[in-house]
Amino acid sequence: MSDAAPETVQQPDAITKLREKLREVSLVQHAVTVLEWDQETHMPPGGAESRAAALGELVGIKHRRAQDPALGECIERAEEVATDSGDADLQSLVREVRYDYDQSVRIPAALATQIAETTSQALVAWRSARETDDFPLFEPHLAKQIRLWEQYADCLQDGEKTRYDILMNLYEREITSERFEQICQQVVPGLRDIIDRASANPTPRPAFMQGPWDTDKQLSFAEEVATELGYDFERGGIDFTAHPFCTSPSAPHDVRITTRVSTDEFTSNLYGVIHEAGHAMYEQGLDPAWEHTPLCESISLGIHESQSRFWENEIGRSESFWSHFLPKMRQYFPSQLDGVTPLAMAAAVNPVRPSLIRVEADEVTYGLHVVLRFELEQGLFDGSITTSDLPGLWREKMQQYLGVEPDTDSDGVLQDIHWSLGTFGYFPTYLLGSLYSAQFYQAIAEQVDIEAEVSAGRFGAILEWLRTRVHRLGRRRMPLELLEDATGQTLDPTVMIASLDRKVEMVHGV
Amino acid sequence: MSDAAPETVQQPDAITKLREKLREVSLVQHAVTVLEWDQETHMPPGGAESRAAALGELVGIKHRRAQDPALGECIERAEEVATDSGDADLQSLVREVRYDYDQSVRIPAALATQIAETTSQALVAWRSARETDDFPLFEPHLAKQIRLWEQYADCLQDGEKTRYDILMNLYEREITSERFEQICQQVVPGLRDIIDRASANPTPRPAFMQGPWDTDKQLSFAEEVATELGYDFERGGIDFTAHPFCTSPSAPHDVRITTRVSTDEFTSNLYGVIHEAGHAMYEQGLDPAWEHTPLCESISLGIHESQSRFWENEIGRSESFWSHFLPKMRQYFPSQLDGVTPLAMAAAVNPVRPSLIRVEADEVTYGLHVVLRFELEQGLFDGSITTSDLPGLWREKMQQYLGVEPDTDSDGVLQDIHWSLGTFGYFPTYLLGSLYSAQFYQAIAEQVDIEAEVSAGRFGAILEWLRTRVHRLGRRRMPLELLEDATGQTLDPTVMIASLDRKVEMVHGV
Repeated sequence: MSDAAPETVQQPDAITKLREKLREVSLVQHAVTVLEWDQETHMPPGGAESRAAALGELVGIKHRRAQDPALGECIERAEEVATDSGDADLQSLVREVRYDYDQSVRIPAALATQIAETTSQALVAWRSARETDDFPLFEPHLAKQIRLWEQYADCLQDGEKTRYDILMNLYEREITSERFEQICQQVVPGLRDIIDRASANPTPRPAFMQGPWDTDKQLSFAEEVATELGYDFERGGIDFTAHPFCTSPSAPHDVRITTRVSTDEFTSNLYGVIHEAGHAMYEQGLDPAWEHTPLCESISLGIHESQSRFWENEIGRSESFWSHFLPKMRQYFPSQLDGVTPLAMAAAVNPVRPSLIRVEADEVTYGLHVVLRFELEQGLFDGSITTSDLPGLWREKMQQYLGVEPDTDSDGVLQDIHWSLGTFGYFPTYLLGSLYSAQFYQAIAEQVDIEAEVSAGRFGAILEWLRTRVHRLGRRRMPLELLEDATGQTLDPTVMIASLDRKVEMVHGV
Repeated sequence: MSDAAPETVQQPDAITKLREKLREVSLVQHAVTVLEWDQETHMPPGGAESRAAALGELVGIKHRRAQDPALGECIERAEEVATDSGDADLQSLVREVRYDYDQSVRIPAALATQIAETTSQALVAWRSARETDDFPLFEPHLAKQIRLWEQYADCLQDGEKTRYDILMNLYEREITSERFEQICQQVVPGLRDIIDRASANPTPRPAFMQGPWDTDKQLSFAEEVATELGYDFERGGIDFTAHPFCTSPSAPHDVRITTRVSTDEFTSNLYGVIHEAGHAMYEQGLDPAWEHTPLCESISLGIHESQSRFWENEIGRSESFWSHFLPKMRQYFPSQLDGVTPLAMAAAVNPVRPSLIRVEADEVTYGLHVVLRFELEQGLFDGSITTSDLPGLWREKMQQYLGVEPDTDSDGVLQDIHWSLGTFGYFPTYLLGSLYSAQFYQAIAEQVDIEAEVSAGRFGAILEWLRTRVHRLGRRRMPLELLEDATGQTLDPTVMIASLDRKVEMVHGV
C-alpha cells in the first residue's frame, strides 16, 4: 500500500484478468457517478427526463457487467490463486469481489434499471415537493421506491435476515437492527440527559454570530480551511447543491464535494465543507495501486461518516481549531469578529439546542434525529407504518425525542434527500459514524498531542494516522474489525457520550 | 414537426423497433457528451487519466451498439416499410440511419477506443503545451492523431475520395477539397481587397473600448442578451472554458454553452456567448418528436456555424442590435458608455484588423485564418507537410495572408483546440458557415424588416424563420439542398463579400 504511483508488481494472470473485468464495471460506474453529480449540480431542468433514461441505460450496462458469468469464472480462478498465494491483499480482494458478485447476480437487470429511473424521477418530485411543502406530491414516488427496495431486499434474502437488515447491510456491513436498537438504548438516555442539563442552563446565542456573512468570503475561507486540513483540490472541487454531498467519479483521483451557503449562518457552509472534505479525504486516501477494485473502495458508510464527523466535530468544533483559524477568518470578517476569542467561538459553534433540521443539528441532538428515522424506516419495512402516516408520525416523534415540532413538511418529513434516492437503512450509519469517530479521536490522542498540533495548524500527523489505519485499507477489514485494529477497543457508545459530556460542560458549564 | 410535446403518432413496428435500437446508442452518447463537457469544465486535473479510460470504454460501447448486426437488420426492415409508406420523414430517417450505420460498421471498435483515449491525452498535452508555449510537447500527440485519422479515413474509403475529403465529409456532407478550393479562389481576393482598403484608411480604436470591464457585469449582460435572442436557459447553461463551445447531452432538452471572460475586452465574452448561443438555439430548435434519431440532429457543421455566425455577426454586430442593447449595457457600465452612440459601438465592434488569433479575428480577416488551416491540413494528409513543419509554415502563411506573424507558438499553431481533438477537416465549415449565414440574412430580409425588428428588441420572427427552414429539419436535407430550399439560391460567395463590403464602408468609410 502506497500513496505514490500505482505499484507495477507482477500479478498472477488470473488476478490480472479479474482486474480487467472489474475495470470494465468500474469505468461504467465512473460515467454513472458523473451523470448523477451533474444532475445535482449543473444540469438544466429541461434535461431531467433524458437524464433519467440515460442513467437507467448505464446502470443496466453496469449491472449486466457486474453479473456477467465470465466475471464469475474469473473470480473462481482468482480464488484458487489467492488461496494458494498466502497473499493477504489478494485474499481480501477475492473475498470482496465474491461478495459483490454474489449480491449482484441476485438482482435482475430490469429491477436495477427500474430503480435508477424511479430514482431520477423521485429526486425531481422530492425537490418540487420540498420547495412547495407538498408531501402528497412526493408520496407516490416514495411508496414506489419502498416497493422496489422490498423487491431488492427479497432478491438478497438468505432466509435469516429481515428486509430492513438486508438494506442496512448495503451501507454498513454486518450491522443488524437488533444491535442498532441496543446502541440506541445506550445512547438515547445519555443524549437526553445532556440535552436536559443544557436546556436547564441555556446559553444565549452570542451577538457576533448574527451575520450577515458575505457568501463569497465564506466560500473563500471554507476553501482555505479544507485545503489546510488536507483536501486536495488538484483531485477535487466544490459545487453547489441544496443537499451537500461527496462523490467520486474516480477515487482517489477525482473526488468532489458540494456545499450550500447563506448569509444568515456561516456554520452551515463552513461545517458542511469540513464534513464533506472529511468524506473526500477518505476517498482521496484510498490506495491507487488497487484502483477499480474493492480494495480501493470505502468499507462502509459508517466508517465514511466517521471521517466526515471526525474533521467536522472532533477537530473543526474544538477550541484549538479556532486558535489556529480565527485569525484567518478575521481577515475575511474583521469587524464582525473583532474581540472574539477562540473559546467564545468554540462555544458558539457547539450549542445544544433541539431543532428541526437534521443537517443543521448540533452533535448532541443529531443522534436523536437518526433514531427517529431508524424507527420510521423499520416501521415502513415491517409493514407497521404506511407512507401516509409519515408526516404525522414525524411530528409525534420530534416532540417525543426533541420537544420541537415542524410547522411544515418541508422542515419535517421532506427535509432529507435520502428517501428520494431510495437509500433506506442509510441513516443509522450517521450515528455509527459518530461512535467510531469519538473512538478514533481517543486512540489518536494516545499518540499525538492533538490540541497542540491543531492549534499550530499542523494536521499532517492526524491525517496520516487515518490514512494508515482507515483510508488505505479500502475494504480489507470489516467496520468493527477495522475499529478494533485501529483503536484496540471494541465498539463502545460511552466514548461518544463522555466526549459530548465534556463539550456541554465547555459550552453550558454543566 | 412541432415545438410542443413529442408526437404520439402510431408508427409501424419496424420503425418503433429501429427507434428503440437508436435510443440505446443515443443514451450512451449522452453519457459520453456529459463526460467530455465535464472534462473541459469541472473535472480536476487529477481525474484526467481515469477520464480518458472511461471515455475510451464508453465510446467502445457506443461503437459496438452503432454497428450491431441486430441494428442492421432493424434498418433493413425499416427501409422496406419506409419505401412503401411514402412518408417523407420515414424515408429521410432510414436514409440517414443507413448512412450512419454503413460508416460505423467500417470503423473497428478498437480504433474508435484508441482514438478516444488518444484524444483525452492529446487534449491534456495541448493544454500544457499552449500554456508553456511548447509545441514539441504536443507534436507527438498530434502526429498520433493524424496517423489514427488516416486509418479512420481509409476505413471509409470507397476508392474515389482523398483521405482529407473523407474527413471533411464527417463535418460537411458532400463538400470536396476541389469545391472548397474554388470557394477560396473566389473569396480570398474579395477579402484581401477589403483588407487593403481598410488598411489604407485605418480607424483608431475608440477610447471607450479601453476597459477595464468588470467580469461579473459582462457575464450578466451577456446572459441577458442570450436570453432575449432566444437561448432557453431552462434547457441550457453557461460554464467557463479556455476555448468556448456548445454541447448537447440531450438535444433539444439540454444544450449547454461555455465562455471565457477578461477585463480587457468585453467583445470576447459578449460575442463568444452570442456565437455559442446561436449554435445552441439550433440544437434547442431540433424536433423533439424525433429525439435519439438523425432527424433530431444537426445536418452539418457548416449549417451549425451559419447559425452561430448569423446571430454573432449579422445580428449582434449591427447598428440596430446596439440601438436596442446599448441602453441595457449602459445600465451595467454607465460611466464607460456615457455618450456612446449605437453607430459608434457598431463601428467599434467591426474593426478590420489583421491579427493572430482566429477566435478573436474580425469577420473579414477570419476567412483567411480558415484558408491557412485548410491548406495546412491538406498538406498534412497528402503527405507534403509533416508536423515538424507546422510552426514555421504557420508563420509564413500568416505573413502571406494577413501580414502579421506570431511571436510564440501559443499564439500560432497551438492556438486551436481542434487538432488535439482530432477534428481534421473541420475548419472549412467555419467559412462555409459565413457564406450560408449571409445568404440566410438576405433571404430573411425579403420577408422581415430585420433592422426594425432588431432595433425594437423583437427577435421572434427571425428565430422562427430559422426554426422552420433550418432547425426543425434536422438531417432531412443535405446542406446545399437546405440552403436552396430556404433561400431560393444556390451557394454564392459573393453575397458574403457584398455584405462585408457594406460593413467596411460603415466602419472605415471606404
